[in-house]
Amino acid sequence: MAKDYSGVIVKIDAIAEKIYDDLQQTNIPFLQLSTRTKANIKFDEKLNVWKYGKNTTERSAKSLDGAYMLLRTMYMVDFVKDMINANKSSTLREMYYISEGWDLAKFSSQPESDSLAEDLEVITHCMREDFKLRPEEDGARVIGNVTIEEITRNKTKKKIHCQDDVGDSGYTIPYNVEPEKITFKGADADYIMAIETGGMFDRLVENEFDTSHRAILVHLKGQPARSTRRFMKRLSEEHKLPVLVFTDCDPWSYRIFASVAYGAIKTAHISEYLAIPEAQYLGVTPSDIENYDLPTDKLTKEDISALKSELSDPRFQESFWKNEIKLQLSLGKKSEQQALAKYGLDYVTDAYLPEKLTEMGMMKK
Amino acid sequence: MAKDYSGVIVKIDAIAEKIYDDLQQTNIPFLQLSTRTKANIKFDEKLNVWKYGKNTTERSAKSLDGAYMLLRTMYMVDFVKDMINANKSSTLREMYYISEGWDLAKFSSQPESDSLAEDLEVITHCMREDFKLRPEEDGARVIGNVTIEEITRNKTKKKIHCQDDVGDSGYTIPYNVEPEKITFKGADADYIMAIETGGMFDRLVENEFDTSHRAILVHLKGQPARSTRRFMKRLSEEHKLPVLVFTDCDPWSYRIFASVAYGAIKTAHISEYLAIPEAQYLGVTPSDIENYDLPTDKLTKEDISALKSELSDPRFQESFWKNEIKLQLSLGKKSEQQALAKYGLDYVTDAYLPEKLTEMGMMKK
Repeated sequence: MAKDYSGVIVKIDAIAEKIYDDLQQTNIPFLQLSTRTKANIKFDEKLNVWKYGKNTTERSAKSLDGAYMLLRTMYMVDFVKDMINANKSSTLREMYYISEGWDLAKFSSQPESDSLAEDLEVITHCMREDFKLRPEEDGARVIGNVTIEEITRNKTKKKIHCQDDVGDSGYTIPYNVEPEKITFKGADADYIMAIETGGMFDRLVENEFDTSHRAILVHLKGQPARSTRRFMKRLSEEHKLPVLVFTDCDPWSYRIFASVAYGAIKTAHISEYLAIPEAQYLGVTPSDIENYDLPTDKLTKEDISALKSELSDPRFQESFWKNEIKLQLSLGKKSEQQALAKYGLDYVTDAYLPEKLTEMGMMKK
Repeated sequence: MAKDYSGVIVKIDAIAEKIYDDLQQTNIPFLQLSTRTKANIKFDEKLNVWKYGKNTTERSAKSLDGAYMLLRTMYMVDFVKDMINANKSSTLREMYYISEGWDLAKFSSQPESDSLAEDLEVITHCMREDFKLRPEEDGARVIGNVTIEEITRNKTKKKIHCQDDVGDSGYTIPYNVEPEKITFKGADADYIMAIETGGMFDRLVENEFDTSHRAILVHLKGQPARSTRRFMKRLSEEHKLPVLVFTDCDPWSYRIFASVAYGAIKTAHISEYLAIPEAQYLGVTPSDIENYDLPTDKLTKEDISALKSELSDPRFQESFWKNEIKLQLSLGKKSEQQALAKYGLDYVTDAYLPEKLTEMGMMKK
């Protein structure tokens, strides 16, 4: 079914009305929104994810900059409304260039327009996708026993089985993975395995791990795009599938896990749409470096300070993380998924993963 | 049909025999190969591409480093032979880690193992794909009226029409695009359009430019992977389709065009497999910056020196390039494909491309 955008339009119209009313009543126009800083992140016990707290910021026409910001906001909601009516979408980069036509209100850099788009999300509690705005990066890839029904450009429904109907590169996740775009028509698997690097994804595909272990393989492509996180969340909820995260062994990979499991700070206003609190970290862990005697590199200054800040990060307070991070600091080493190739191309699928999955109680006998 | 690798095995065995014979005849073992430097690049009038010249380098056991290099070479050809026999493939990253098992012969960094893989290509005149070695990056995307038959993992043939059988993200080009992996089962289009950025690719897809203009759209993803170049070359030769390259307007984008049209220096030994001499540059050109009054950024120091070195690059000697590069230096500006959004989301497909295609005589009326 085509999505009903009337709710979105009501919300963005409300923004224009608010400003209009301020002007009518000769008040200085302003908009209020949650402060999007680490300091204003609170753990929501009910949703089990990180959300913004009570602190708010005001965008007011008191200052010239503030007035321009409000003007840009008006232009942007207008542009968004046009796209919805024309059934178009635009990249954030295009959105930035579109503002070239706004005279004095034009953005001076793309980060400005990107963050205004995020402000609109915070104000309206809609998602960027509701505004028909999308990022540049192309989506992650999926291979496994799941059938997806995608509504294509020409409004036809297309069923795609992510093993039988795709090439070896798999199914590519589109930027919009909401029900108006894709629906899951059955999945027969034991879990979703989210994999950081393309090399490891391809290894598991070549070794047919998806069939031999009933796994749905998802390539995260480093820090996963929203669409990838949303895709995994919907699939895991709708088909009761656990999510296992398989990354390199360094502080940046732990952040990838954290954004999958708990959500990222800049998207905390939509954590409940993106975060998968039940997601489990499979590895590679600092303990694995020792247990499997893996090839390593020395931790850089940046690695060390990132690990230390994770020790104080509320998202890494479980003893598992505390112990692993402390171990890694004492080892002074990091490693990569593909380092397992030290023992041959099949070691990861024949030995490492089965052992780790057994530890986690995920190994079906 | 499964590929016959016997030819490859003969060639890699010959390397081992050469070293064996040297030792038998108590000569100091060595291997000879073309020098892979800009100085040793010659334009091949017959093939119409850039190839290596007569200069050669010797890898000899005279020095300890040279001896280790030969030892690594032996280990690598052995590993390649194992993969061929086991019908496996490996990423260059895995290849690097595999060498952890080679004791003294192990590589100290991945660039070392990557370049040895290229040396093997130069010596044997095979391609990396023949050795079952592949890069990390995942392939580019294709949308257009072309049907591809891909042999999938489970050895079954799968026909994929790149409009009807794919989601909006299109068909993803696998790392191996040789006939044993994919064949083209018919293509009905006027040309292949190779596009630098994902944002512009998605714009043309959303605006259905592939159907309205009978174009096969290929996303280059910046500097295109070998598989993307090889894919376009095969498709353009087998179906007599011209290739038009649509990029940003900066010196780095011109290099993308050059690698598509003339081949890159580090792959000059296989230029005839990868380069498409007939490829034409569509834009964005410095003239377009003026003619279309596009949003621009100032050229950086790096941009300026890159442009100057292109003026002396044998691949950019046509008057078209000389004039455009000089114009850009005098403008002191660069621009992006998506800057065309200044005039709205449809301007590129409704105005810019039709005008440019008419100029190039590519516009079918």
